[in-house]
Amino acid sequence: MSEEDSFQEKTLSSTYIYQGKIINLRQDKVKLPDGRETIREIVEHPGAVVILALTDDNKIVMIRQFRKPVDEVLWELPAGKVEPGEDLKNCALRELEEETGYYPRKIKKLITFLSTPGFCNERLTLFLAEDLEKRNKNEDAGEFIEVKLIKPNEALKLVKENIIKDAKTIIGILYLVSSKNSIEY
Amino acid sequence: MSEEDSFQEKTLSSTYIYQGKIINLRQDKVKLPDGRETIREIVEHPGAVVILALTDDNKIVMIRQFRKPVDEVLWELPAGKVEPGEDLKNCALRELEEETGYYPRKIKKLITFLSTPGFCNERLTLFLAEDLEKRNKNEDAGEFIEVKLIKPNEALKLVKENIIKDAKTIIGILYLVSSKNSIEY
Repeated sequence: MSEEDSFQEKTLSSTYIYQGKIINLRQDKVKLPDGRETIREIVEHPGAVVILALTDDNKIVMIRQFRKPVDEVLWELPAGKVEPGEDLKNCALRELEEETGYYPRKIKKLITFLSTPGFCNERLTLFLAEDLEKRNKNEDAGEFIEVKLIKPNEALKLVKENIIKDAKTIIGILYLVSSKNSIEY
Repeated sequence: MSEEDSFQEKTLSSTYIYQGKIINLRQDKVKLPDGRETIREIVEHPGAVVILALTDDNKIVMIRQFRKPVDEVLWELPAGKVEPGEDLKNCALRELEEETGYYPRKIKKLITFLSTPGFCNERLTLFLAEDLEKRNKNEDAGEFIEVKLIKPNEALKLVKENIIKDAKTIIGILYLVSSKNSIEY
């Protein structure tokens, strides 16, 4: 028996509690590896992209926006959810331009990660965007965003001082810094 | 008018859709800065801790466990949700011992972060645990966990190769590596 088999939870039934604009909520009744049964609460999310965009003078394009779930204005990297059928790279190009007005001539996928896999299936794909052209900001309805350019070492300081608190943004900044401030194509 | 005021969304009404074992789901009707109204879908979570535990020979204590929302066995740092009224440091000590059998003689809070603040209020607090004593593993009912010790540079490689995909785990590893593999007390 492989490790995967011995850890697996078999779904016995699946019930939707809510199907919403951005997220769905379902309850799965599962059979545990020891034969007992339990309920897993699962939030479904369509997935998202996050963009680490670097200007020619090596500054990170960051945004500040209010987030209702935590009632705070947060420092974040530009990001947004994937539309049905949308290619992830096109989504990253669209979200970066909408939120910041920057359009990159170079873009590259770095990693995909799971924001909180204990109860949610959200997958975020982190892109590196460089060689930026300034176009027009074009926010979605309901988005109110301020753009700020920050040096990697200042961003790292804001992470360590716990002023930057958003997980996807911390990952982008620490990924860059742990690559010695430059990521090779 | 301060930046915070100009970005703020005022809650007009709040309705619970679901109140569950671990998470709740509510809909908030909010007034946007431009006066229009919209609905925000908000997942409430009690908060959690995550522990970067280092052995005396500088290995990271990691676990592997199955996560139903993504149907995968994941590499993770030990972690767990906070019980009502529980002190975060005590929660970290309890979860580390339950999941791995290690008990640290030194423990320190590093940062608190938000897993996915676009739709969820989950706050995770990252602790550094050192000077570990081996006790007995004592998994919660329904937890099936394998413990692995990994060198920081191997863990970094697993992040860059996208084998480690859990956000809180990536943050812990990159935080350590960006602190030049040792964090001062």
